[in-house]
Amino acid sequence: MNSTADLPEWSAQGPVVELSEETCWSLIAGAGIGRLGVVIGEQPEIFPVNYFADGETVVFRSAEGTKLRGIVADRLVVFEVDSVGEFHNWSVSVKGAAEVMGPAYANRAAEDALPPWHPVTEYNFVEIRPSSITGRQFEHHLNAVRRSDDGTLSPEL
Amino acid sequence: MNSTADLPEWSAQGPVVELSEETCWSLIAGAGIGRLGVVIGEQPEIFPVNYFADGETVVFRSAEGTKLRGIVADRLVVFEVDSVGEFHNWSVSVKGAAEVMGPAYANRAAEDALPPWHPVTEYNFVEIRPSSITGRQFEHHLNAVRRSDDGTLSPEL
Repeated sequence: MNSTADLPEWSAQGPVVELSEETCWSLIAGAGIGRLGVVIGEQPEIFPVNYFADGETVVFRSAEGTKLRGIVADRLVVFEVDSVGEFHNWSVSVKGAAEVMGPAYANRAAEDALPPWHPVTEYNFVEIRPSSITGRQFEHHLNAVRRSDDGTLSPEL
Repeated sequence: MNSTADLPEWSAQGPVVELSEETCWSLIAGAGIGRLGVVIGEQPEIFPVNYFADGETVVFRSAEGTKLRGIVADRLVVFEVDSVGEFHNWSVSVKGAAEVMGPAYANRAAEDALPPWHPVTEYNFVEIRPSSITGRQFEHHLNAVRRSDDGTLSPEL
């Protein structure tokens, strides 16, 4: 985790920017919806979750009684947030171990005015301790080609 | 893969509807952006990809020269599409084995007018042979609670 600057590159799909850690945290800052990737047996699974990111960790909540708590506890997970924009798309991935936090954490989170989804008794909080955060920004031009009715290929805007 | 009707239920997070396979395919029909979940070693990874879904399979493209082709070939993958709406959110997951298709497939896809991202030479196509497709719709009301300035809790709309 030592990248400090956005790095323009050229991928097989077109112009792409490898984003710095600072930019990655900035893009996913605050609360929103992201996707949690876990492995169950040999099967990867993806769950959309509400999350909060503060520049050091990612926290998401898991309702008491759902499977998610048991699935993620102390496991390697990936947490991904992406966005489709007018000029480019971006995707940020946080990888690390997931830790289920106890009631004291929920209380502290409430005191610190964590997210809009303030803790209620039926929620568990799960924190990802990041081992890496990486992101890429994909420029729209040359990202794809479109075939016109006459068969010609042109960049998809 | 035999569900035939949407099934209203009640989760710990609020009202939720277990979607039928027909509804799931309908929601992800056509082309768009989804997220591919794979396992590399013990680490789950998530990649946003362009895709096309026709009610039987999900096809996504992988640019020649990227890692994705080698990563997904003959592996168990999950492909997830979700949407945040005014009244509810939904999420659909397709699980199955990924198969890298040869040039003949790209040609056939072109003839069948597959997606807007018609094949060009630098793309590989990867098909997911679904072993399951499942989806859930989360109603917004009671999905979360918001704490007002005076400390009272109310449903987040």
